Amino acid sequence: MRITGRSLIGWGEGTPGGKRFHGCDPARGVELAPAFASATGEDVTRAVELARAAAPIVARKTGAERAALLQRVAEKLEANGAVLAERAAQETALAPGRCESEIARTAGQLRLYGAEAAQGDWLDARIETAQPDRQPTSKPDHRSMLRPLGPVVVFGASNFPFAYSVAGGDTASALAAGCPVIVKAHPAHPGTGELVGRLVVAAVRECGWPEGTFSLLFDAGFEVGQALVKHAAVQAVGFTGSLRGGRALADLAAARAEPIPVYAEMGSVNPVFVRPGAIAEHGAELAEQLHASATLAVGQFCTNPGVIVVERSAAAEVWVRQLAEKLEATAPATMLTPGMAEKFWEGVAKRAQSARTVVGEKAREKNAGTGATARPVWFETDAVVFARERGLSEEIFGPSAVVVWCRDHAEMLDVARHLEGSLTATLLAGAAEAAGERELIEVLASRAGRVILNGFPTGLEVSHAIVHGGPYPATSDGGRSTSVGTRALQRWTRLVCYQNFADELLPVELQNANPRGLLRRVNGEWTRGAVR
Amino acid sequence: MRITGRSLIGWGEGTPGGKRFHGCDPARGVELAPAFASATGEDVTRAVELARAAAPIVARKTGAERAALLQRVAEKLEANGAVLAERAAQETALAPGRCESEIARTAGQLRLYGAEAAQGDWLDARIETAQPDRQPTSKPDHRSMLRPLGPVVVFGASNFPFAYSVAGGDTASALAAGCPVIVKAHPAHPGTGELVGRLVVAAVRECGWPEGTFSLLFDAGFEVGQALVKHAAVQAVGFTGSLRGGRALADLAAARAEPIPVYAEMGSVNPVFVRPGAIAEHGAELAEQLHASATLAVGQFCTNPGVIVVERSAAAEVWVRQLAEKLEATAPATMLTPGMAEKFWEGVAKRAQSARTVVGEKAREKNAGTGATARPVWFETDAVVFARERGLSEEIFGPSAVVVWCRDHAEMLDVARHLEGSLTATLLAGAAEAAGERELIEVLASRAGRVILNGFPTGLEVSHAIVHGGPYPATSDGGRSTSVGTRALQRWTRLVCYQNFADELLPVELQNANPRGLLRRVNGEWTRGAVR
Repeated sequence: MRITGRSLIGWGEGTPGGKRFHGCDPARGVELAPAFASATGEDVTRAVELARAAAPIVARKTGAERAALLQRVAEKLEANGAVLAERAAQETALAPGRCESEIARTAGQLRLYGAEAAQGDWLDARIETAQPDRQPTSKPDHRSMLRPLGPVVVFGASNFPFAYSVAGGDTASALAAGCPVIVKAHPAHPGTGELVGRLVVAAVRECGWPEGTFSLLFDAGFEVGQALVKHAAVQAVGFTGSLRGGRALADLAAARAEPIPVYAEMGSVNPVFVRPGAIAEHGAELAEQLHASATLAVGQFCTNPGVIVVERSAAAEVWVRQLAEKLEATAPATMLTPGMAEKFWEGVAKRAQSARTVVGEKAREKNAGTGATARPVWFETDAVVFARERGLSEEIFGPSAVVVWCRDHAEMLDVARHLEGSLTATLLAGAAEAAGERELIEVLASRAGRVILNGFPTGLEVSHAIVHGGPYPATSDGGRSTSVGTRALQRWTRLVCYQNFADELLPVELQNANPRGLLRRVNGEWTRGAVR
Repeated sequence: MRITGRSLIGWGEGTPGGKRFHGCDPARGVELAPAFASATGEDVTRAVELARAAAPIVARKTGAERAALLQRVAEKLEANGAVLAERAAQETALAPGRCESEIARTAGQLRLYGAEAAQGDWLDARIETAQPDRQPTSKPDHRSMLRPLGPVVVFGASNFPFAYSVAGGDTASALAAGCPVIVKAHPAHPGTGELVGRLVVAAVRECGWPEGTFSLLFDAGFEVGQALVKHAAVQAVGFTGSLRGGRALADLAAARAEPIPVYAEMGSVNPVFVRPGAIAEHGAELAEQLHASATLAVGQFCTNPGVIVVERSAAAEVWVRQLAEKLEATAPATMLTPGMAEKFWEGVAKRAQSARTVVGEKAREKNAGTGATARPVWFETDAVVFARERGLSEEIFGPSAVVVWCRDHAEMLDVARHLEGSLTATLLAGAAEAAGERELIEVLASRAGRVILNGFPTGLEVSHAIVHGGPYPATSDGGRSTSVGTRALQRWTRLVCYQNFADELLPVELQNANPRGLLRRVNGEWTRGAVR
């Protein structure tokens, strides 16, 4: 497979006019060929117009047809896994093995969302049959379900070149829901993006879907993304990235003449609350696991633990020293981009002004000269300072965390109550302790989309029950939806109700005979049966 | 029951300091006693702080307890129906019979949403059990469901003093979902608002719910509403009213440090597409019914038909003349407020500059001096002008509509494609015609939340299958939710997932034994069974 450096617009390519940029090998600090051309305004218009034209055709694709398309994309990813992983590893400095397993995960995700589309229960079909003789007024027949929103714009993430990128979770769930997709590729891995994009385009063609089903646009800057979000024909946006980027897009979308939803997953600090029993019973094991979770992929996960809340005691101090030793021994590693490493070191330098360093005091000097690398830098502070200095509870993307020392349980509860929203919140407790922590658990459930007991936040299951979303600023919609798992399909839909329709004019999902065998709510009762 | 003119804040009353205003009898053009005191900043703070404190307690109320509270409110509304209807009829000029039937509807709504809360299937409980031996990584136990958002602010509507007001659909669904509610009363019927508010407070106390469960704030202007929407502890907003008002609140909420959802139902033009067969087969009957739908309650419904799209023919012209005669013969009637009548007459005067009058040409003069009355003013134009003059497709609240003449079917389709979002869209077609209108039906389903075949949009069923929402500007969230029907509860929730929890620490809805007998998705399959 050849990389051309051009946007993919339907069956064609972008115009050559836009500003050029390169992918980069952050480990070696060199630009990678070829040059990529930023999409032009003309490219944006063409991609959106194609998507607009395709939308009603894509919406009519059956669940089975959607599953077949996503299956085809998954097969192509797997068949080209070696080439894809090689380019991704080069562009991101992620280990080749990690890239391969991420491809497997992405393929699994595509199949799971396709299966969900084929199954169809998620459409929330509801039927209330007519009662012409009801008094004082007759009751008409009403049948409703979720219908696709139309063209969706997806912003690929830097830290998952496959699973949250061109053919990642947002794209897969939007196609499964029956919406055309325009991806704005992340400029940190454009070659990987183009390779995956070409596979998606090939799958779309082979499956006989319309040209506007999928496009992929490159941009060195922000103009293309902004133009897409502002375009009147775009109906929704998926985003994974920074708080600043996500919020800017959400603000743009909210200011449109016709506002549209932005599902932005913007990361979080993922607090971990450590009770004394956990340290007493499994201290060494927990230190090992927390170290692994906090340094995995150089801390470049949106679920990376960034705030560790501990009740002060002699045992807890020993435990944090153990942890610090492991962190201190962690080798520096290359981050996704030199810019990210720069931001990381800026962030920790700033934080060092308001909190004491637990580990990594001399890391700055050790890093000097290596460019794109980072190594763990942890801080400590007490609950009073943590409450006062809001900057301490902001995310530093990378392997950094703050240990917050609490005097007692009440102060720990208070820290929990004042946390900003997170994707996850974790409680580490001893065998007899957890039962006494109902109040803390309830507070954590109000501050995060996923609450973990005696586990760690990294390593995200893609399933029917998972929630990857949380109160703002974790996600722009305050955790009302999830960007991972089968519930992700619902984001790309709206409700439509049909009143007094002849059976044959209804969508098949709402017809009396229930040919798809859906679980439907008929006159209040959930059933897979036919009506009457 | 005495009306004091004070805001109701928990068990207490508002401070007397705020700007004073009066309810008004629009039919007689006189102010009604007593004077109402606008809530002060202090009142707002107290109401929100009470709601914040109550939120976790309200969230813990069981489905049965929520049903009991809503049942108690319904009983009190019914027991005091005569007093309530009398004051409402005075303040709104709606017929006493209409007020009585609206109270019955409101009580029914409270009971339906309570029953939904008690039943609990709506919580979308999902369970994926652990697979400790899975390769390459073990699978943890994940269990998730919808949880209450926290304090909700509800803006009462002017046109439904009961069903969309203090104890209306937004309040009922938010309480059913487990959220405290602060209502900003509509100043057009403050006496009715206070009477209903006192009944809600009494029900809350009798049922043993906390003080911050419910508050009711008055305001002559916009300050109180704005302060509520901006308050950090408020988590969501429900609104029924004008596009201008809804959009202003949505913009405020989107600009917050922590944006929150605004579910604003802002009305729409509710287009009606008339095919020749409908006129040929049931012309007289349809003219009768359309006249009734368009003039019901002086056209003051958000589902009022405001755009009538007709293919030009001799028969169609005769039909429109018939309709015009009925409209011409319609007696003037008092609108909800003098201000609303003023806006109506301003709107039709402006419209007369770009469209011909079908009926009501001299209505302006006829109205002179009567103050708050309106009578039907209809316009006609052709599709080309309609497309050009966007003002013609804006809603005029009251008994006004535009007949849009199309040359042929293609032009009719084109009108449909370019419509702004509506709550409803209607197709009137002959027996043999509807089957040929699949394309038009699909376009209408993309432009409205409810598509009606051979029926009329007014008269809204409150049920499991109804959708009252639609693409912007019908609703601020683009029709992803409904403000009427049991799906309305979902608006006040977010998703929470519990990972690796001991059974007894989980919410009862997610415990293995499934004591509530909920329909849950367990390892992919929907079941009412226990786990294992």
